[in-house]
Amino acid sequence: MAITKNRKLRPMSRRAVEVQESPIRKLIPYSDAAKKRGIHVYHLNIGQPDIETPPEFWNAVKNYSSRVLAYGHSQGQASYLKVLSDYYKRNNLDIEPENIIVTTGGSEAIVFAFLLIAEPGDNVIVFEPFYTNYNGFATQAGIHFVPVETRAETGFHLPPREVIEDAIDSRTRGIMICNPNNPTGTLFTKDEVGMIVDIARERELFVLSDEVYREFVFEGEHVSPFNFPDVDDFAIMMDSISKRFSACGARIGNLVTRNRDLLAAAVKFGQARLCSPSLEQAGAEAVYSLGKEYFDKIIGEYKRRRDVVYEGLMDIEGTVCMKASGAFYAMARLPISSAEDFAKFMLADFSVDNKTVMVAPGPGFYATPGRGVDECRIAYVLNTDDLKDAMRILKSGVEAFNSR
Amino acid sequence: MAITKNRKLRPMSRRAVEVQESPIRKLIPYSDAAKKRGIHVYHLNIGQPDIETPPEFWNAVKNYSSRVLAYGHSQGQASYLKVLSDYYKRNNLDIEPENIIVTTGGSEAIVFAFLLIAEPGDNVIVFEPFYTNYNGFATQAGIHFVPVETRAETGFHLPPREVIEDAIDSRTRGIMICNPNNPTGTLFTKDEVGMIVDIARERELFVLSDEVYREFVFEGEHVSPFNFPDVDDFAIMMDSISKRFSACGARIGNLVTRNRDLLAAAVKFGQARLCSPSLEQAGAEAVYSLGKEYFDKIIGEYKRRRDVVYEGLMDIEGTVCMKASGAFYAMARLPISSAEDFAKFMLADFSVDNKTVMVAPGPGFYATPGRGVDECRIAYVLNTDDLKDAMRILKSGVEAFNSR
Repeated sequence: MAITKNRKLRPMSRRAVEVQESPIRKLIPYSDAAKKRGIHVYHLNIGQPDIETPPEFWNAVKNYSSRVLAYGHSQGQASYLKVLSDYYKRNNLDIEPENIIVTTGGSEAIVFAFLLIAEPGDNVIVFEPFYTNYNGFATQAGIHFVPVETRAETGFHLPPREVIEDAIDSRTRGIMICNPNNPTGTLFTKDEVGMIVDIARERELFVLSDEVYREFVFEGEHVSPFNFPDVDDFAIMMDSISKRFSACGARIGNLVTRNRDLLAAAVKFGQARLCSPSLEQAGAEAVYSLGKEYFDKIIGEYKRRRDVVYEGLMDIEGTVCMKASGAFYAMARLPISSAEDFAKFMLADFSVDNKTVMVAPGPGFYATPGRGVDECRIAYVLNTDDLKDAMRILKSGVEAFNSR
Repeated sequence: MAITKNRKLRPMSRRAVEVQESPIRKLIPYSDAAKKRGIHVYHLNIGQPDIETPPEFWNAVKNYSSRVLAYGHSQGQASYLKVLSDYYKRNNLDIEPENIIVTTGGSEAIVFAFLLIAEPGDNVIVFEPFYTNYNGFATQAGIHFVPVETRAETGFHLPPREVIEDAIDSRTRGIMICNPNNPTGTLFTKDEVGMIVDIARERELFVLSDEVYREFVFEGEHVSPFNFPDVDDFAIMMDSISKRFSACGARIGNLVTRNRDLLAAAVKFGQARLCSPSLEQAGAEAVYSLGKEYFDKIIGEYKRRRDVVYEGLMDIEGTVCMKASGAFYAMARLPISSAEDFAKFMLADFSVDNKTVMVAPGPGFYATPGRGVDECRIAYVLNTDDLKDAMRILKSGVEAFNSR
C-alpha cells in the first residue's frame, strides 16, 4: 500500500497555510523549558493582567438566575446592552442600546467589523506597530493591511495627513486605530483622532476604533471617533471587558455603530453563532456598576508600573522609548541587534538569581519586513516590586546579550 | 448642508448585505406580540432544551480555582483536552488530546473547518434540509453550499452515491454531514457514513462531521467518519457540549482532526482570538464525568418526547414524517400551502385556551428556492405533557389555517 501511504495530502486552504502563528505565543516552548530548569520567568510578554477580577463578577456568576444555561439573545442580553449604553453615556459618548452588539471578546468584534466593511481582497490602513493578533482576524476575513509607519522617536504618534492619504488605494475600506495603543501605549490626541475621522469622511472610508484600553489613560484625555459629530455612517468601535475589568478569559466584548444597516448585518452574523457566553455576560453586566473609584485605584497602580518600566528602560543606555500615556505596554528600541534572538536568549541562556524576563519581540507587531527588529514590547502586568526586579534583570540581559 | 445629509451611505460589504437573517429567529417579533396579548407560546422552534444544566457544571463554575479570570490556552486547557480524548475513546474513537482544539461553541468549530479547507469561492456539499445557521458561517468564510436533496418520504436518508458524486465540481472541497441530523432527526447508517468517507477519499475531499447530537440516538448506533480506517488526512469533526449537557449558553465546542497540519492551522486561527471561555471550560470538563447513567435518563426522556411528537403528527391527516432515530427534531411535511404563512398564522391569528405553538418553517433549512415550503421543523425540547398539549393545538391550527 505504498502508494496510499505516500499519496499527496489534501492541500489545506491558502489562508490555513498563511495564517500567522502568534509571535507572542511562539516563544512559549522556550519559557516552558526555562521553567523546567527551575528558572522563574517574569511574563512581560502578554497583556494578561495580574489584577483580580472584581468580586462583583464572581458574585453575579455564582448567583446566576437560571438552572438551564440557555442561549441568550444574538445581539446580547437587553439588560447588558442598557448597562453598556449607560457606561458610554457617562463617558460622553451618545450610544444607545440599539447601537451595540455584544460579541465573544473584542476579537469577534474585530472579525465582524472586517466582514462588515470589506470584501476578500480589500484592505484596511493600520498604523504599525499594531496589535499582532489583528493579522489572524484579517486572514480570517480575507482582507489585507496597508501599514503606515509610526516611530519610537516620535512616541509612535501618527504621521502627517498626507502620508496616511498616500496609503489609501481603490481597495481601501477603512482606517483602524487602537487608542490608547497596543503595543506602544500611545494615547492619540484629539487632533490625531479628528484627522482620522476627517480622512475617513472625505475618502468615504470606515473608521475602526479599538478602545479596549480606553480607561487606561495616565495623562491627557481619551478621545473616540464617537466624540466627533456626524460619524454615524462610518464609525465602528470595538470594545471589551477583558482588560478594563481584568476578565480576559470571559470572552465578552462588543461592537458599536450608529449605522443601522451595519448593526443589523452584525446581528445577522451574530445569529449564526447564536450568542456570546450567557454566564459571563451576567458577570460583565455586574462589573459595570464599578465606576471612578475602581478605575482610579487600578489606573493609579498601572501608572506606578508604567513609571517603573520607563525608568528601568531609561537606565539601559541606548534605549529609545517615549513615556507612554496609556494602555499597559511600552514599545522600546533596545541597543540589541535582534529582538527575536534577544527574547530567546533571555529564556534559553540567561538568568539572574534563577530569574529571567520574557518580552514580546518587535517584528511581530509590524507588517513591513525588517521593521521593529531591535524593538520589544513590554507589558507591565506585574506588581511594582516584581517589575523593578524584572527591569534590573532585563538590563543585565541586554549587557550579557551584547557581550556574547 | 443638504448635500452632506443626502450623501450616499458608505456601502457595506456584499457579505454583510447577503448574510441571512436567521429564519428561526426572524419570527420572534410575532411570538413577542402574542405573549404581549397574554398568549402562552410553546416554543418548538428552537433547539434550546429545557433540561437543567448538570450540577457538576455549576459546581465547577462556583469553585473556579483562580481569582483572576485569565486567558487560557488557545488550543484549550490541557486537562479538558484529556477529558475530551477519554470521552471519545470510551466511544470507540481513537482521538488523542493533540487531535483536538477547544472552540467557542460548535459554531466556531464550523467556521474554522470552512476556513481550513476552502478558499473564498470554493464550495462544500450539504444535504438539504440542513441546519440553517450553516449559511451564516459559509458567508463568513466566503464559501458556497452545493445542496443535495434528501426527502421526507425516505426519512431524509442519503440519495444514491452517483447523485452525490454528480454534485461535486472542481471547486468542491468537502462534504458535510450532521449525524444525527438537525433538522430531520435522521440517524445516518454505517453504510451511509461509509459512502461519504469513500467518496471523500476517492475525490480528495474533506469530510466535515457535525456530531453535536451523537448521544441523542433512540434506535441504532451512531457512526462517525472516525470509526473508519485511514481517515486521518481528511476527516474533521465538529462537536459541542451545548445539547449533550444542556449548556447552550456556555459556548464550548471543539474541532477534531488527526491531520496535524490542519490542527496546527486551527490553533493559529485560535491564537488570534486567544482562547474560548475559561470559566465554562472548567464547567465542561466537569460534566464529562457524567456517563451512561446520565445519558440513559436524558435519552429516555427525549425518546418519550419523540414518540409524543410523532404520534401527534400522525394524527394530522396528510402529514408525511418518518419516525426519526436521533437528535431532538422532527421535520414534517404538513398539509399546508405555506409553512411561513402557517407559522405566522399560529402566532398572530390563532390560539386554543390562550395557548399557541411556534414552529420553524421549512424553507429556512433549504438552499434550493421553493423546497420545504410545506415543511416545518419541530424541536421536542419540552416535557411530554406540554408536548401533548402543543401537538393538540398544532392539529387544530392546521385545520383552522386551512379553513381561513
